[in-house]
Amino acid sequence: MRIGFIGLGNMGGPMAANLLKAGFDLSVFDLSAKAVEAAVALGARALASPAEVARDDVEVIITMLPAAAHVKQVFLGDDGLLANVQPGVLLIDSSTIDPLNAREVSAAALAHGNPMLDAPVSGGTAGAAAGTLTFMVGGHQADFDRARPVLAAMGKNIVHCGGAGNGQVAKVANNLLLGISMIGVAEAMSLGVKLGMDAEVLAGIINTSSGRCWSSEVNNPLTGAPAARGYSGGFGTDLMLKDLGLASEAARQVRQPVLLGALAQQLFQTFSNQGNGQLDFSAIVKLYEQG
Amino acid sequence: MRIGFIGLGNMGGPMAANLLKAGFDLSVFDLSAKAVEAAVALGARALASPAEVARDDVEVIITMLPAAAHVKQVFLGDDGLLANVQPGVLLIDSSTIDPLNAREVSAAALAHGNPMLDAPVSGGTAGAAAGTLTFMVGGHQADFDRARPVLAAMGKNIVHCGGAGNGQVAKVANNLLLGISMIGVAEAMSLGVKLGMDAEVLAGIINTSSGRCWSSEVNNPLTGAPAARGYSGGFGTDLMLKDLGLASEAARQVRQPVLLGALAQQLFQTFSNQGNGQLDFSAIVKLYEQG
Amino acid sequence: MRIGFIGLGNMGGPMAANLLKAGFDLSVFDLSAKAVEAAVALGARALASPAEVARDDVEVIITMLPAAAHVKQVFLGDDGLLANVQPGVLLIDSSTIDPLNAREVSAAALAHGNPMLDAPVSGGTAGAAAGTLTFMVGGHQADFDRARPVLAAMGKNIVHCGGAGNGQVAKVANNLLLGISMIGVAEAMSLGVKLGMDAEVLAGIINTSSGRCWSSEVNNPLTGAPAARGYSGGFGTDLMLKDLGLASEAARQVRQPVLLGALAQQLFQTFSNQGNGQLDFSAIVKLYEQG
Amino acid sequence: MRIGFIGLGNMGGPMAANLLKAGFDLSVFDLSAKAVEAAVALGARALASPAEVARDDVEVIITMLPAAAHVKQVFLGDDGLLANVQPGVLLIDSSTIDPLNAREVSAAALAHGNPMLDAPVSGGTAGAAAGTLTFMVGGHQADFDRARPVLAAMGKNIVHCGGAGNGQVAKVANNLLLGISMIGVAEAMSLGVKLGMDAEVLAGIINTSSGRCWSSEVNNPLTGAPAARGYSGGFGTDLMLKDLGLASEAARQVRQPVLLGALAQQLFQTFSNQGNGQLDFSAIVKLYEQG
Repeated sequence: MRIGFIGLGNMGGPMAANLLKAGFDLSVFDLSAKAVEAAVALGARALASPAEVARDDVEVIITMLPAAAHVKQVFLGDDGLLANVQPGVLLIDSSTIDPLNAREVSAAALAHGNPMLDAPVSGGTAGAAAGTLTFMVGGHQADFDRARPVLAAMGKNIVHCGGAGNGQVAKVANNLLLGISMIGVAEAMSLGVKLGMDAEVLAGIINTSSGRCWSSEVNNPLTGAPAARGYSGGFGTDLMLKDLGLASEAARQVRQPVLLGALAQQLFQTFSNQGNGQLDFSAIVKLYEQG
Repeated sequence: MRIGFIGLGNMGGPMAANLLKAGFDLSVFDLSAKAVEAAVALGARALASPAEVARDDVEVIITMLPAAAHVKQVFLGDDGLLANVQPGVLLIDSSTIDPLNAREVSAAALAHGNPMLDAPVSGGTAGAAAGTLTFMVGGHQADFDRARPVLAAMGKNIVHCGGAGNGQVAKVANNLLLGISMIGVAEAMSLGVKLGMDAEVLAGIINTSSGRCWSSEVNNPLTGAPAARGYSGGFGTDLMLKDLGLASEAARQVRQPVLLGALAQQLFQTFSNQGNGQLDFSAIVKLYEQG
Repeated sequence: MRIGFIGLGNMGGPMAANLLKAGFDLSVFDLSAKAVEAAVALGARALASPAEVARDDVEVIITMLPAAAHVKQVFLGDDGLLANVQPGVLLIDSSTIDPLNAREVSAAALAHGNPMLDAPVSGGTAGAAAGTLTFMVGGHQADFDRARPVLAAMGKNIVHCGGAGNGQVAKVANNLLLGISMIGVAEAMSLGVKLGMDAEVLAGIINTSSGRCWSSEVNNPLTGAPAARGYSGGFGTDLMLKDLGLASEAARQVRQPVLLGALAQQLFQTFSNQGNGQLDFSAIVKLYEQG
Repeated sequence: MRIGFIGLGNMGGPMAANLLKAGFDLSVFDLSAKAVEAAVALGARALASPAEVARDDVEVIITMLPAAAHVKQVFLGDDGLLANVQPGVLLIDSSTIDPLNAREVSAAALAHGNPMLDAPVSGGTAGAAAGTLTFMVGGHQADFDRARPVLAAMGKNIVHCGGAGNGQVAKVANNLLLGISMIGVAEAMSLGVKLGMDAEVLAGIINTSSGRCWSSEVNNPLTGAPAARGYSGGFGTDLMLKDLGLASEAARQVRQPVLLGALAQQLFQTFSNQGNGQLDFSAIVKLYEQG
């Protein structure tokens, strides 16, 4: 099967590599010549623009872009995908953007005769490299079934979340909760330690009690792996900040309050401004430490 | 073994019943004649005051009281436990109070020659009745070992959390996180549903992703058991409010910020003031619904 | 002087009426035929589109539109103002939008040879009718001087805030603070009354102390005029909500934390969802009352 | 008139000095010998304990102590004021404590036959030295009238706030609002400057608009006097933190939500922990600056 792939960054690059490894025939585009070269070295064919990818003889086009503005330009721009692609080609956007923009692009694609899926991922660059990403997919069931073998070459967990935009909804809702619960763990652990408990003992108790969560078990800000390596790597504070921004903006648009979510976003922003945007988001616990 | 038991309320009553069922010899006191009668009907001996319990020939005294003021009065009052008890008698306070008051009482007991444990519980009235409570215990290891068989008659999970007061620290830290993560789940679920997702599908995705927590898996505010029964029973909003009050007060005393925790406390207070204090705390999701 | 006026809503209608009253010659456009008729009855000339207004022989064009999307469409759309207007015509946008979009439109106008001012107002529909609005104006000093006589026909207080976009910055910053301080007053007054003080006495003390602010003096949520009339009229909750949304979005774009601001926004959203969006924003005090 | 004065700290010392200057006959007590010496040098008579002050032939006793625990000990302790004072002596507590403890002490005094006023102050050490403090006074009107000439020797603004405890209520409510509005100003000013406005211009606009407040006009965190002197002196962050703690604790006791107030408290705690507890509380704006 021939696939077009647009966006070969930190996530898109290794995802494309896994498609090539799985035997798919890939036509790629990226603004960075270096990123394109790396894909070509693995067997991809370089094209000069999204329009060329759209006009190439592909069955599926996958996009992996930084933000909604890029997605809208690539799909809806004057010389973008929809202006050039044949009807019937399956479009899969794996960018993380807000659900309303995702639905706007999806509706435009459908109107043009192109089935479309929003399929944001979780799992980070490590998951992208290992091919163990989770895909949260919104769109028609039939299109989801058609996309599954392609997505399975890049991920381990391929979940259908309902109609168009619901992949983005699932990601934004999950990460909203993740951001809140991480700060919750940071507060509970800091308080417990300040009150005289051993961090490992406290983590152990929480993890067998009603406070347990992914952030206390897998990524505990005081006792977890990121803490042990000085919070380098992992899911960066600025990525969490982006996702909380998407959540609060989507919430604003549908007039839904997110009180803890909005505060969590502001706390990550405060922490990022103190020079910590690249640290694993569990480093937020440093905001709670005495200076 | 003879045990004194003071405080036969919603929690203390069934706990005492389980001790009697396990064959312990019980001397009891409560201000409510009715509560005392119920214990006597199960084989307990009624005494007229904490002082009488203290002067009775008991090896262990267990207290289960509403708040720190009661604990301090019963232990430190002019005619309280310490003024009347023989040195060596093991004192176990299962009330939920703040760690600093717990440590003050514990220090007074030790100074009087009485080993003491703070041993707050989780598991609610259902756990108290079934004898499946979790005990979070602070105090010396030897005293913990001595108490274990007694506590095991009332609970399933008996955890040593370190020195005096650490039982309270563990409970307060866990419930701080619990209160935050429950509101986090309420926000994430409400937002997802408002953005068009099915609640069950969204819960399923979160529960296999990084947002998962006890509040999303076991007590989900939209898809869990309390929701299904109209939020009756369960862990009441006003109990969560009390625990968050203990957490923020303990935090204030040791000058530790709890930003999300303080906001969670205020949100439960707002919700309680709207007439919902008796509902399961997952009902907080109603604060996020359109009027 | 001939002026084009686009947007004859609750604010724009009375503003246009005041320009007519001051003797300006007005060409107007609005999607609502009824709004246009009202202006025509006062002496305005009706035109069929923004493009017609732009091509009319006007020296100044004023726009008063609901949101950034409308502003961008009217100014930058294929058949919008810039596509049709003569260079040199002064463009004044009195809509309240975020500073970054305002600057984008302003830059496009300047590139086309049209001086432009962003000139959002405060004072509400009452101020618009009375001609007592405050104009916060961003743009070049010379353009500000040129606009002043026109603006003076509609407002009392015409303030130059600096370069392009700064009118919007001033409004967004002021209203961010206004939203926060109003909730602050609501909390302080409610708490004082709950603790047993008379509301009037407390307001009197605050208003001569360091807590005093416009929201405690002029629009006190318990003792002010809006409270006395059941919170009808005034500056609506949903308008405050819109402005706090602009503030938090502008803050997100420049990575500036607004912790209380974000929480204030969420509280107004919660209150609006309970059916109170049309009430004066001081009605937020009801969120603090016992149900 | 003979007056007893207990508590000669940063505030109490200069207050006692002003009483001496006004010609009152003073018997004083403080734990610090140095503080007592200073008062004696100005004409006061030193006594060895609160009990001695109570047994001295005084008509009025004034206390100025750090916190509720000290107040309760001095008034209600075994050898405290009430155990030793003659009925009829007027007791005035100028300490800042929570209203509920103030009422408890006041009720005990009345039961003992002593009229009592709670009379916390604002104005800081500068106001104490200059004799320009504001006294917020709770208690009976007749007692207030009796105290007024005494208080007038120490302050400029003597306000009767209603019954017992209401002086504390007024102070706690005012300072709750002050803490919130100061952070509100910090957020609005920082955001405006980050978006490109001049701080002085922005302050000028806010101060003639609906965002104006004491914190923007008198103590502006970017353009005010404390900022100009590096935030030294003034009303310290840790004093604001204490008052917000009193407010949130009083709110908890009467089950009144203080959502922004609780967040403001946590933000001042965070800022204090970063080593800034001694800075004027307007320095909180530094929390919003890029690191």
